Amino acid sequence: MPLIPKSHPRAKSLQIREKLVEGFDHGLVAKEGLMAHGRGEAFDYLLGEKTSRAAKNAIKAAAITLLSAKSPVISVNGNIATLCPKEIVQLAKTTNAKIEVNLFYTNKKRKNKIIKILKKYGAVEVLGINPKKARQVSGLYSARRVVDKEGIFQADVVLVPLEDGDRTLALKKNGKKVITFDLNPLSRTSQTADITIVDNVIRGMKELLRVSNNFSKKKMNNKLKFNNKKNLANTILEIKNNLSRRLPNA
Amino acid sequence: MPLIPKSHPRAKSLQIREKLVEGFDHGLVAKEGLMAHGRGEAFDYLLGEKTSRAAKNAIKAAAITLLSAKSPVISVNGNIATLCPKEIVQLAKTTNAKIEVNLFYTNKKRKNKIIKILKKYGAVEVLGINPKKARQVSGLYSARRVVDKEGIFQADVVLVPLEDGDRTLALKKNGKKVITFDLNPLSRTSQTADITIVDNVIRGMKELLRVSNNFSKKKMNNKLKFNNKKNLANTILEIKNNLSRRLPNA
Repeated sequence: MPLIPKSHPRAKSLQIREKLVEGFDHGLVAKEGLMAHGRGEAFDYLLGEKTSRAAKNAIKAAAITLLSAKSPVISVNGNIATLCPKEIVQLAKTTNAKIEVNLFYTNKKRKNKIIKILKKYGAVEVLGINPKKARQVSGLYSARRVVDKEGIFQADVVLVPLEDGDRTLALKKNGKKVITFDLNPLSRTSQTADITIVDNVIRGMKELLRVSNNFSKKKMNNKLKFNNKKNLANTILEIKNNLSRRLPNA
Repeated sequence: MPLIPKSHPRAKSLQIREKLVEGFDHGLVAKEGLMAHGRGEAFDYLLGEKTSRAAKNAIKAAAITLLSAKSPVISVNGNIATLCPKEIVQLAKTTNAKIEVNLFYTNKKRKNKIIKILKKYGAVEVLGINPKKARQVSGLYSARRVVDKEGIFQADVVLVPLEDGDRTLALKKNGKKVITFDLNPLSRTSQTADITIVDNVIRGMKELLRVSNNFSKKKMNNKLKFNNKKNLANTILEIKNNLSRRLPNA
C-alpha cells in the first residue's frame, strides 16, 4: 500500500480512502461501496470536512430517538463496518439496539466477514444471517428486502447509515422511523428519512455515540423538536456559503 | 451484473457506474479509480449532469489549443480508457496528438490492458510502455513522474483527463500547457491547469471531439481569449444556483 505523506493537503481524506481499499481487500467492501465512498467524500469536501451545526442538531435528535425507541436496530453494511466497527458496537450497547447486517450487493461470505469484524469489537449477536429468520420488507425488489424477523422486521426505529433511496422509502412505508447518515442532503434517502445526519460517518458516529452516552445517563426530556426538511435546507445553505468562501478570485 | 431498471431516477448514472465496475473487473480501473469516479459523480450531480456554459467555453479553448500545439499528447489512465476509448483515439487523430498511458497506481499488466483497448478502437501507437524511452518529470515522487521521451517529456501541450494535483503542478513547472477534465472546480488540478473542463468525461470528450473536428476543417483564428480562473468561478456560481433551485421547501 502506498504511504501517504502527512504533508499532503488531502492526507486525512487519503488515509480514509486507504482504509476503504483495505476493507475491500479483506472482502468487507463492495466495488460499488468504493464509488459510494467517493461520492460522500466530495460532499464532505463541500461541507468543509467538519460536523456542521445542522448535523449536530440531527445527531441530538437521533440520540433521543434511539434511546426512547422500543426496539431500535442498527443496520450495517460493508462501508460502515470498515469505517467504524467500534462505534457501531458501542452505540448498540448504549442504546440497547440490535445489530443487523444488510447488504445491497448481498453475499453470504461478505456478511460473515462483516459479522466477524463486529464480534472482534465486542458485538455479542449480529442478526441478518439466519435464513430461518428471514422476512421480507414489502415494496422492495433488491436483495435488501430480506430482513431478520427479530431485527429490522419488528423494529420501530432503524438506524441505516449509508442507505439507498429505495430501501429508505420501503422502511418508511413499513412504518419504521428511519435515521440515516447521508452526505448528500438532496438524495432521496436524505429527503425521505425522519432524521438525516449529513456528516462523514467517522466523525458523525463518534459524536452520536458521545451524545447518546451523555443522554443515557440523565433523565431525558422526550419532547423532540426536530424538522428534518428544515435541517437539510440549512445544510444546503452551509454548502453554498462554503462555496462562496472558497470562490477563487478571478 | 445487476440490471438497472430504466425507470430508476438515477439510471444513467448507475449505468456508468456499472461500466466502471466492468472496467475494474477487466483490470483497467484501479480501486482508487472507483472512488475517484464517485467523487466526480457527486460534483456532476451538483452541476445538474449537463455540460455547462463554462465547460463549453473551456472545451472551445481546449480544441484551439490542441489544434495549434506543436506536439500535443493525450495522457490516458484506466478510468478514461474505460469510459471513452473511442473518443480518445479519434481526438488524437483529429488533433495530431500522441497517446501516452500514465497511471497513478502503475502496473505493467494494467498498462497493457489499457493499450489493448485503445488499439481495439484504432490507436496505432500508444506510448508510455517502453522502459528505454522512460524519462522523469522533475518535482514528482510518485510513479507518475515517469514519462515517455517521445510523449509527455517533449510535449508542449498535454491533455490530462482526471489528473491528480501533484502531477498537474509538476507538468506546469516543466513548462507544459495543461488541459484537464476535472469535475471539482476547486481542486488543485482545476486551479493549476491552463484550461479546466469541468464536465463528465463521457459528455465532455464527445463535445471536445465534435468541436475539434469542426475547427480542424476551417482556418483558425488563433487568438484565444480564455481566463481559466474566471471560468472556474462561473462554474462554482452554477453549482450554487443549482443548489438554490433544488433547495427543498422547509
